Amino acid sequence: MRLKKRPNLYIALLHYPIYNKNKKIVTTAVTSFDIHDIARAARTYDVSGFYIVMPIEAQKNLCERIISHWTEGFGAGYNPTRKEALKIVSIVPDLKAVKDDICKREKIRPKIVATDARIFKGSIDYLRLRKKIREDNLPYIILLGTGWGIAKRVMNSADYILKPIRGEAEYNHLSVRSAASIIMDRLLGEEVVK
Amino acid sequence: MRLKKRPNLYIALLHYPIYNKNKKIVTTAVTSFDIHDIARAARTYDVSGFYIVMPIEAQKNLCERIISHWTEGFGAGYNPTRKEALKIVSIVPDLKAVKDDICKREKIRPKIVATDARIFKGSIDYLRLRKKIREDNLPYIILLGTGWGIAKRVMNSADYILKPIRGEAEYNHLSVRSAASIIMDRLLGEEVVK
Repeated sequence: MRLKKRPNLYIALLHYPIYNKNKKIVTTAVTSFDIHDIARAARTYDVSGFYIVMPIEAQKNLCERIISHWTEGFGAGYNPTRKEALKIVSIVPDLKAVKDDICKREKIRPKIVATDARIFKGSIDYLRLRKKIREDNLPYIILLGTGWGIAKRVMNSADYILKPIRGEAEYNHLSVRSAASIIMDRLLGEEVVK
Repeated sequence: MRLKKRPNLYIALLHYPIYNKNKKIVTTAVTSFDIHDIARAARTYDVSGFYIVMPIEAQKNLCERIISHWTEGFGAGYNPTRKEALKIVSIVPDLKAVKDDICKREKIRPKIVATDARIFKGSIDYLRLRKKIREDNLPYIILLGTGWGIAKRVMNSADYILKPIRGEAEYNHLSVRSAASIIMDRLLGEEVVK
């Protein structure tokens, strides 16, 4: 199905509040491959912005160093396509800052879509969300977790919870980089594939 | 569309023969995130095997060390799902070894599908390949490139060349990890999404 209206989708990668292996709330560390891979996919699928939620100052500085290497430093000349992808990345301290920034840009509150590898009751499927983000004429933001997943209170506060990528599969342990790429393709990809 | 027959798909990640930035044929270095992310996606989508093509002995040893850390070393106990994903990885010196191994396992020559971010004449689309791998009852192998893409002679020798993921997009610079994940989802994912 081809739908004409351009979707207005944002992506946020949460490093807090996140569960660790033992179900404790922690701040996870930055992974440079997350920044690169998700930014490149986001740019490929015309995502409106990619936020990295990181409350720890030293880790925020690390993100900024990685990004500026490719946007202003040596990498900018060496690999200009990487520069173009990383230009859409913003580093913010919390989810509120993501919402505030989108509100400022769009003059309207975005709809929040949380994601998880587990099955949640009443979750939305890809086809329905694909239609909604085109028909609603609203900004949407997809929350991606790190570590062992997004804290329950954030999941509960979302407008929608997206179905796991392979909810029926016996094994479903994709990296956040893979999951992000597949989610963007399912929601924003142009090709009728199945 | 649901097709009942189980597809028999293999994945191979080529580090040789690969183009570098200046269109010279080189061997690219191993990236541990490629091994992890592609193995996890391959396991999630029930891929029959994941080959890493690496002719350089020292780099082959590095791959083996990464894998054995997670399959036999500390990582095996710490993260058993990682162990399960990495069990399907084989490291081989060249593409011939991939074909030979599949021939030995399947008693038949696999069909070779090359991939590239650029558009090739006569390339196959995702829907057609998705049907073929179910209807043909043959093993298929998807060749993924590193660096600046797979050498022309390998592209020319393939049975099929798969369409780029976003052939029409103005920007199409996905990481091989993202591309691999999206390709597996388009060919093997169960959900009707578009």
